Amino acid sequence: MKNIAILGSTGSIGQSTLSIVASYPERFAVASLAAGRNVDAVFEQCVRWRPRVVSLATEELAAELARRLQKEGSTTEVVWGSEGTVRVATLPEVDFVVSAIVGVAGLEATYAAVEAGKTIGLANKEAMVAAGEILTAVAREKNVALLPIDSEHNAIHQCMRAGKRDEVRQIWLTASGGPFRTLPASEFKNITVEQALHHPTWVMGRRITIDSATLLNKGLEIIEACRLFDLPPSAIKVTVHPQSTVHSLVEFVDGSLLAQISVTDMRLPILYALSYPERVESDLRFDMAALSDLHFEPPDLQRFPCLRLSYEAAEKGGAHAIALNAADEVAVQAFLERVIPFTGIPDTIEQVLETTPERHPATIQEVLALDSESRELAQEVLAGREAFRRC
Amino acid sequence: MKNIAILGSTGSIGQSTLSIVASYPERFAVASLAAGRNVDAVFEQCVRWRPRVVSLATEELAAELARRLQKEGSTTEVVWGSEGTVRVATLPEVDFVVSAIVGVAGLEATYAAVEAGKTIGLANKEAMVAAGEILTAVAREKNVALLPIDSEHNAIHQCMRAGKRDEVRQIWLTASGGPFRTLPASEFKNITVEQALHHPTWVMGRRITIDSATLLNKGLEIIEACRLFDLPPSAIKVTVHPQSTVHSLVEFVDGSLLAQISVTDMRLPILYALSYPERVESDLRFDMAALSDLHFEPPDLQRFPCLRLSYEAAEKGGAHAIALNAADEVAVQAFLERVIPFTGIPDTIEQVLETTPERHPATIQEVLALDSESRELAQEVLAGREAFRRC
Repeated sequence: MKNIAILGSTGSIGQSTLSIVASYPERFAVASLAAGRNVDAVFEQCVRWRPRVVSLATEELAAELARRLQKEGSTTEVVWGSEGTVRVATLPEVDFVVSAIVGVAGLEATYAAVEAGKTIGLANKEAMVAAGEILTAVAREKNVALLPIDSEHNAIHQCMRAGKRDEVRQIWLTASGGPFRTLPASEFKNITVEQALHHPTWVMGRRITIDSATLLNKGLEIIEACRLFDLPPSAIKVTVHPQSTVHSLVEFVDGSLLAQISVTDMRLPILYALSYPERVESDLRFDMAALSDLHFEPPDLQRFPCLRLSYEAAEKGGAHAIALNAADEVAVQAFLERVIPFTGIPDTIEQVLETTPERHPATIQEVLALDSESRELAQEVLAGREAFRRC
Repeated sequence: MKNIAILGSTGSIGQSTLSIVASYPERFAVASLAAGRNVDAVFEQCVRWRPRVVSLATEELAAELARRLQKEGSTTEVVWGSEGTVRVATLPEVDFVVSAIVGVAGLEATYAAVEAGKTIGLANKEAMVAAGEILTAVAREKNVALLPIDSEHNAIHQCMRAGKRDEVRQIWLTASGGPFRTLPASEFKNITVEQALHHPTWVMGRRITIDSATLLNKGLEIIEACRLFDLPPSAIKVTVHPQSTVHSLVEFVDGSLLAQISVTDMRLPILYALSYPERVESDLRFDMAALSDLHFEPPDLQRFPCLRLSYEAAEKGGAHAIALNAADEVAVQAFLERVIPFTGIPDTIEQVLETTPERHPATIQEVLALDSESRELAQEVLAGREAFRRC
């Protein structure tokens, strides 16, 4: 029986994880949950799953949840804030931590969980981008497995099993290409928020949907892959595959490529990570009759400069990886608020990267400080644009 | 350094194996060679590779080769016949035996090599079809690896590494579909020898080209896969994939499929088998830019009855697997001699299978006896057809 802590239990990955736990009661149990502000959802999860500890964003929300749980006769302990999340992630009985708190918020708790020797299921991409060098170092030291839960890196993890790490020539991350895969370069400046929010394959949050449209999301995945699989950026390639059926490929030195194919359902990588190194029977069947035509094409770095910027940030690592992620989040917000055009996203990131000094943080605190600095820098760049525009 | 014996050194697989040995002189050496009747080719191989022992089909051919080698001052010992092939396969210094003698001729030597504890690279499909139950049993007993050298099973072997055998739900063998993939059922009876010998992807021998056109070749591969990977016929599926880019897929119980992709060059599976469990750098690069569109479709058992017959033979195993292979070889020969139409091939096989009693040979001698019986039976069926036609 694996005891699981879920960081981000009310989000999409958290809910999918709970549905997997529900399907395999003999294998998995919920030990603890951490969520943000959705008291109603967490309350229901506590009634259903009876975790020993649950954490919410603030003391007030925690107090409200505690009151409601008391009425139900629940014995769940309610904690809050980043300390609460760390507690949830490091309980002695926890074997496996699903790290699915979006952004750098989940970083401290994930780090604490690795330090405490827990196996990690990583759905929090930004954690590996911002602090991958630190997280992988401590994971190596503690002999802790970092198992990717996003579909591309999970695919790579599976394909890597067909050889040794030093037998990998390169990795091919598949990208859907987003809604603007075939849009002429001249029309990129006129892309509206509505157009950019319409992703062809996945239904996701607003930032990640825009990141899929700029391919910055794939850029973050390049950095994540470098960290997770200990490979240089030059060994991580992108291939545009609009059907999103092949989730990624690994090319070995002898010339063999291994590809992973499955339904596009996050429960599959979650189940894989939770049960690794075993595989367990599931009803997630890929219909081979539906496997008719698969298309692949090289990405266009000219129309999608975020991909080029990501490679540059990956090469420099440290502060530049942090800046890439932070500047993008700020720029995407500005695009969503219609302050900058779609093409303003890579422009903003580029300017932030250009003024970012080369630094390699050694602690999570330094990572968080650099993240704040990058956000401020991005805001300044945006303010500069605005001032320039008004001239 | 791995010392290699090549059974079938002058054939296509033998030559490809030698080209791999030539590329990796620090890893592989030629210990011994067995060939058939091509004295000129074997002579050149002996001069180049200086094997300790070489075997030819007959005493006369061996004497001729010995005379020519003596003039060159060669110290290679020349032997002949099936005993000679066994000697080549079982020399004490041999680590790895490439079993690439077409048909059941290579069977005795392959069995002897397994018994002698040699690692086997299997390019001889019929050996596994006719005697797979016996070969795998002795391989298990001697803890010997049977590594497939044909592209489909080699692909499966690679994909299987991403999980355990009992975590495999089913295997998907890819089939090019042959030249008649899209031909209407009504036109099959008019297929000419010339049409059938024109394979869309691979250039191969005459029998295997016809077997690719009837899909009987895929049927033999179904049986081979059952034996090699210890799976029931119901777990071996076929998907028609005209590009032959994906060489096969393995579907695991959790719903993940792993696929292997590479250039269509036999040197790749040979190199994989020779260097297993390592992978070594090669110049066999798959051009991802060329990976544009991949098509898959289910096979049509109505137009390709050989596939249905193969599943039936796989279910019964033993004598029926032997009969499938033997009857097909006889029927293909009759088709090539324009004695029977294309549709006469499955008809002949079906009649032979119907009159074959269920038997499970325990020795290679019994396998060879059953093989002869099946060939006679097939000749009788053909003679009966002929007699019937003349009525």
